[in-house]
Amino acid sequence: MNRKIRMGMVGGGPGAFIGAVHRMAAALDGHIELVCGAFSSDPAKSVLAGESLYVNPSRAYKSYEEMIAKELALPADVRMDFVAIVTPNHLHFAPAKLALESGFHVVCDKPLAFDLKEAEELEAIVQKTGKLFALTHTYSGYPMIKEARDMIKSGIIGKVKKVMVEYPQGWLATQLEATGQKQADWRTDPKRAGISCCMGDIGTHAEHLAEYVTGLKITEVAADLTTFIPGRQLDDDGAVLLRLEGGAKGVLTASQISVGEENNVKIRVYGEKAGLEWYQEDCNSLRVKWLDKPMEIKRTGGANTSAAAAFHTRVPAGHPEGYLEAFANIYRNFALSLQSILKGETPKPEYLDFPTVHEGVRGMAFIEAVVASSNENAKWVRV
Amino acid sequence: MNRKIRMGMVGGGPGAFIGAVHRMAAALDGHIELVCGAFSSDPAKSVLAGESLYVNPSRAYKSYEEMIAKELALPADVRMDFVAIVTPNHLHFAPAKLALESGFHVVCDKPLAFDLKEAEELEAIVQKTGKLFALTHTYSGYPMIKEARDMIKSGIIGKVKKVMVEYPQGWLATQLEATGQKQADWRTDPKRAGISCCMGDIGTHAEHLAEYVTGLKITEVAADLTTFIPGRQLDDDGAVLLRLEGGAKGVLTASQISVGEENNVKIRVYGEKAGLEWYQEDCNSLRVKWLDKPMEIKRTGGANTSAAAAFHTRVPAGHPEGYLEAFANIYRNFALSLQSILKGETPKPEYLDFPTVHEGVRGMAFIEAVVASSNENAKWVRV
Amino acid sequence: MNRKIRMGMVGGGPGAFIGAVHRMAAALDGHIELVCGAFSSDPAKSVLAGESLYVNPSRAYKSYEEMIAKELALPADVRMDFVAIVTPNHLHFAPAKLALESGFHVVCDKPLAFDLKEAEELEAIVQKTGKLFALTHTYSGYPMIKEARDMIKSGIIGKVKKVMVEYPQGWLATQLEATGQKQADWRTDPKRAGISCCMGDIGTHAEHLAEYVTGLKITEVAADLTTFIPGRQLDDDGAVLLRLEGGAKGVLTASQISVGEENNVKIRVYGEKAGLEWYQEDCNSLRVKWLDKPMEIKRTGGANTSAAAAFHTRVPAGHPEGYLEAFANIYRNFALSLQSILKGETPKPEYLDFPTVHEGVRGMAFIEAVVASSNENAKWVRV
Amino acid sequence: MNRKIRMGMVGGGPGAFIGAVHRMAAALDGHIELVCGAFSSDPAKSVLAGESLYVNPSRAYKSYEEMIAKELALPADVRMDFVAIVTPNHLHFAPAKLALESGFHVVCDKPLAFDLKEAEELEAIVQKTGKLFALTHTYSGYPMIKEARDMIKSGIIGKVKKVMVEYPQGWLATQLEATGQKQADWRTDPKRAGISCCMGDIGTHAEHLAEYVTGLKITEVAADLTTFIPGRQLDDDGAVLLRLEGGAKGVLTASQISVGEENNVKIRVYGEKAGLEWYQEDCNSLRVKWLDKPMEIKRTGGANTSAAAAFHTRVPAGHPEGYLEAFANIYRNFALSLQSILKGETPKPEYLDFPTVHEGVRGMAFIEAVVASSNENAKWVRV
Repeated sequence: MNRKIRMGMVGGGPGAFIGAVHRMAAALDGHIELVCGAFSSDPAKSVLAGESLYVNPSRAYKSYEEMIAKELALPADVRMDFVAIVTPNHLHFAPAKLALESGFHVVCDKPLAFDLKEAEELEAIVQKTGKLFALTHTYSGYPMIKEARDMIKSGIIGKVKKVMVEYPQGWLATQLEATGQKQADWRTDPKRAGISCCMGDIGTHAEHLAEYVTGLKITEVAADLTTFIPGRQLDDDGAVLLRLEGGAKGVLTASQISVGEENNVKIRVYGEKAGLEWYQEDCNSLRVKWLDKPMEIKRTGGANTSAAAAFHTRVPAGHPEGYLEAFANIYRNFALSLQSILKGETPKPEYLDFPTVHEGVRGMAFIEAVVASSNENAKWVRV
Repeated sequence: MNRKIRMGMVGGGPGAFIGAVHRMAAALDGHIELVCGAFSSDPAKSVLAGESLYVNPSRAYKSYEEMIAKELALPADVRMDFVAIVTPNHLHFAPAKLALESGFHVVCDKPLAFDLKEAEELEAIVQKTGKLFALTHTYSGYPMIKEARDMIKSGIIGKVKKVMVEYPQGWLATQLEATGQKQADWRTDPKRAGISCCMGDIGTHAEHLAEYVTGLKITEVAADLTTFIPGRQLDDDGAVLLRLEGGAKGVLTASQISVGEENNVKIRVYGEKAGLEWYQEDCNSLRVKWLDKPMEIKRTGGANTSAAAAFHTRVPAGHPEGYLEAFANIYRNFALSLQSILKGETPKPEYLDFPTVHEGVRGMAFIEAVVASSNENAKWVRV
Repeated sequence: MNRKIRMGMVGGGPGAFIGAVHRMAAALDGHIELVCGAFSSDPAKSVLAGESLYVNPSRAYKSYEEMIAKELALPADVRMDFVAIVTPNHLHFAPAKLALESGFHVVCDKPLAFDLKEAEELEAIVQKTGKLFALTHTYSGYPMIKEARDMIKSGIIGKVKKVMVEYPQGWLATQLEATGQKQADWRTDPKRAGISCCMGDIGTHAEHLAEYVTGLKITEVAADLTTFIPGRQLDDDGAVLLRLEGGAKGVLTASQISVGEENNVKIRVYGEKAGLEWYQEDCNSLRVKWLDKPMEIKRTGGANTSAAAAFHTRVPAGHPEGYLEAFANIYRNFALSLQSILKGETPKPEYLDFPTVHEGVRGMAFIEAVVASSNENAKWVRV
Repeated sequence: MNRKIRMGMVGGGPGAFIGAVHRMAAALDGHIELVCGAFSSDPAKSVLAGESLYVNPSRAYKSYEEMIAKELALPADVRMDFVAIVTPNHLHFAPAKLALESGFHVVCDKPLAFDLKEAEELEAIVQKTGKLFALTHTYSGYPMIKEARDMIKSGIIGKVKKVMVEYPQGWLATQLEATGQKQADWRTDPKRAGISCCMGDIGTHAEHLAEYVTGLKITEVAADLTTFIPGRQLDDDGAVLLRLEGGAKGVLTASQISVGEENNVKIRVYGEKAGLEWYQEDCNSLRVKWLDKPMEIKRTGGANTSAAAAFHTRVPAGHPEGYLEAFANIYRNFALSLQSILKGETPKPEYLDFPTVHEGVRGMAFIEAVVASSNENAKWVRV
């Protein structure tokens, strides 16, 4: 018999955005409860945040070090099972490392780390400790993205020739960081975000989506990154030509200055026999464009979809599922896998369908290759 | 300081659909925990369901009567706070009445009751007991529906002239009930569903949406209901001409035999200066069609939306929210209201923005008027 | 060998709308040339209009009577072949009658006549004279409407159960006629438009579309017509419950006060095995919603479309065709039929695929039934 | 007083595609009549084609040389006014040169010529002869493209930062040329198409659209062209990074192997204050995405559009105009300009709003730069 999985959170205090998303995603399916957190480096703020989240004040910690130490001192049937890390990029590595080495499993926000070196070290730690590690690349959690991946894997669209992936946003089209807006502030700061803003924050989502859906690795990139807003230190826009395994070509664009764009990440893949198209604004539809018959629209919960698509769907077709449900698919799979492990069982393959530290390393390698290429006037660079 | 609200569930055992939806909706925001349930009339099944939901076996009851009696015997700081009723229509009244009269608050699935008489009696009980009562008309929980209501209330579109509301589905286009499918089985059975299938199950959603958005009551209906599937005892399709307060006119259609339609409930309202259009397939957009300037698309989380729209939004614009989030808005508001009450405070008006027993009575009155009209060859009948 | 067909026009002078549409539709395919016209009852205006249309001043007439008389006096190889009537409703009958009885073929704008009596008389004249008569119900000229008709005729969607047809417009949402706007002026005047404005002008388009696509006649109507704009003498909005041959049901709505709506005529037909959906805003797509497989989108010029759809398509898929092309399909078919007749041949069936005087009589009967029903508080009235 | 403009056609015989498009576009508005043609190099075929087009057999010529010579010999009031060249790329230069130097005006299909050298020579001839020259880059003929250009020119979206333009097609996803399909045959043949297939045929449309809408020249390109289909001699897919005047960046993609794509050319432009989006599948809408207010959708014939948008619109909003209407806008403007010239007047600026030989030279320069860049592994090359 299973029990609820217990989560401790690092970050996610007042003014945070993604922390609340992680909490809703973790809560949705009822398998996970939030039991503790180091929500803020200000102890009072951490307790206050904890209270609003129904966390016992004694378990609202002032740092992740304290959290890990004190949780370890609690009885096993009370102690948190895993740590959810929802801090800025430069604060992923240390808590993840400590958590893993202290015996806790980890869910970490993306990109994985501050740089590739950290990422590779983290991968080694995960391998050494054998703990479960999930990276929250939300978009591969959508049912219709599973469907696209499964169609391609099945061979039904033939060999993949071309991938178009884009992630347009407009929220950094002005110098928002100058207003003190917290999200903009750290993402545009090389000390906290790393060597890239746009490519790190959303380019990696696009990169992950391309590799996840096609099953092909990106082998080379030629990138032109731009900083459009004067005074900004990192890129806020970029275009990348892609070469992938097996001769496929691609184009990846990401932008934070595309005024008026919300978050409409989109992927198109063209094989020999069909093209697939998905975009977040109509996230429950997968357009299948055949060579010689009318376009079909596959739907979340609809007819003729794969087992994996169905497994990641909660309500019948026509009841829109969205971003939080896609995010929750990562948490639910992580929880189901952890329950299996706690029972001494091997998690079912469908439970393990979530991004791991390995996808995180790919993302960091992508960032470094793209920045290197752009720095050399869009020269081709191997990933 | 608030505490989590404790939920007991009636119904929602194996094979159920809406019970799981209620649980996800209640869980999403972290304010509610499921502590007990009478999930099935079969005691073993109820315990099994409870286990899978992390409910203590001692609180997985075999009937709502047992649940209410035994919970009353528990200490106040353990006892459930409210009952969620997710059973078929004929099993709403009795548990709701007992719960209310035993001092519990209630969330009830729609339509409110088996017939108008039960509904009116329930309204009287709610008034007498002073307990909180929420009815889960999901669609008025969408942020862009709040926006539409607020625009109309503000007068910006002028006097409302015309309402078009439709709810097309295709899932009962074959005699699904003959296969033993549980959802189809009870909805087409007059002993459990009441005098209408299509109008009761989804027509009332459309009716509620029309009245909620426009702020106008439907005063008269002329209806043509049809049973297209041979052997079926209740309507599976219907069209209703509407007359509303203030001279507005309308058309309401609902269908369960519109092959290939999923669940695309849609409302259009035309005033003197603008028309509004919303449909569930693009639930995060509200189309505003002006008399003399280009159409605008308001968006969940986007610019220029009302306080209420923002209050019912969880993530920034472009991260699609869907059906479960709309459903969760009812539960969250119910929980926030209950927390206020538990603290001896009056809930804020925005917390009380959910359908109540009164909207349930309206729905039952609508069903009876529509069936009466159809029985008299579409004669106009007052609601 | 064929020759160009020669057109004479009645109406379509300065300030007219539909006359220019007829001329472009007639010109597009190169089979028809405008040789003369009675463009205005003001002789100077008629000559001026003619000049701008490259019509010889000697053939710009001051009345249709003059036109018919003088053209008859011209040599056969110069004389017009047919008359295009593009005047308001009350001026259809007389020129059509005279033209037909003088040996000319006729293309006439819709609705056919001022009232049903005129319409029936015209049908008798057409039968007696044996002349070709086309009525410009544009929307059945769209390739994807042909496709829908052909799919239904083939039986692939099974027996038709339900038809939803709507024609929303907003252009008469204010008292436009009071400004002297010519189109609004005559359409709202019972002396020129007949007994209905909205149902006559656009309701008949919807009615024709429903009958053309399904192949079923509307047998009974229950209608609620409204005049929303104070001071207006005719209906500007209406909703009609439909009963069709074979037990099918339907809903037809038309409105001229639906603020912000352009012209998005839409039809949905549900059979036993599939539903079809078409609307003018995406006129090159036909949505096919299957009972048990993903929705398909058939496209103008695309794969798996009928011979008739292809015959009415001019450019490869993806090059949008629109309203003028649909309109031109009527003129082209009329011209091809006339060329056959001039050669003494029977026109091919695909040439004769355009609305005739018979569809015009149906439309007038529909108007009268709808107005009668509405006058008796939405009583069912036979068409 | 104006007269109809007389057109002679080079090409457009049996099996041709674009010739028929030119004829419909020229015919639509009634200002142009087809009087002669060298429709095929086979004299019998040319006569046959002419007959089907109502061209006098004496004016169905066997070559453009014959046509020009014989037309010159006709009286001035009978003789063609201009030559429409609708042949493959390698057959543009010679007839255009002869026509211009013989005193005829020219409409020419795109791309302008076989190579940049020819293009530049043609530009010089146009300048020397002073004849009118139109190049049929259809897409800039759409009303909503005029609107986008005018909005940008007005400064309302601020300085342009980013341009995304794409032209996906799938019709060459198989080796169609091997089947003898005429369109595929010449486009993939370097002897007739020039140095590029995909970039020449549709990449130049995208390039023209980008420069036309933004008013900015592309200054540098970095391109990765691909030939996906074995045995094909020219590119069938390509992606191009763009740098434009004033620091704007861009991405241009064109593909003929994107299976299932029809012809959905799309442009997005992001300025400081708004983003604009247009795509051919919804060609009557222009999405305007503001920094700080809801998205607006401007519509062909709708409110708040520019004088140029209105001038290129034929029917009221909601009556879809399409590809042929956009194409016809070039012909109509060419005819109106020519009528002015024939009267000894200077054409109004709005008449001269069509692509000329200059835009043709830009296109040829673009092709050469893109191919050069791709040949050097996507090195940046100046246009």
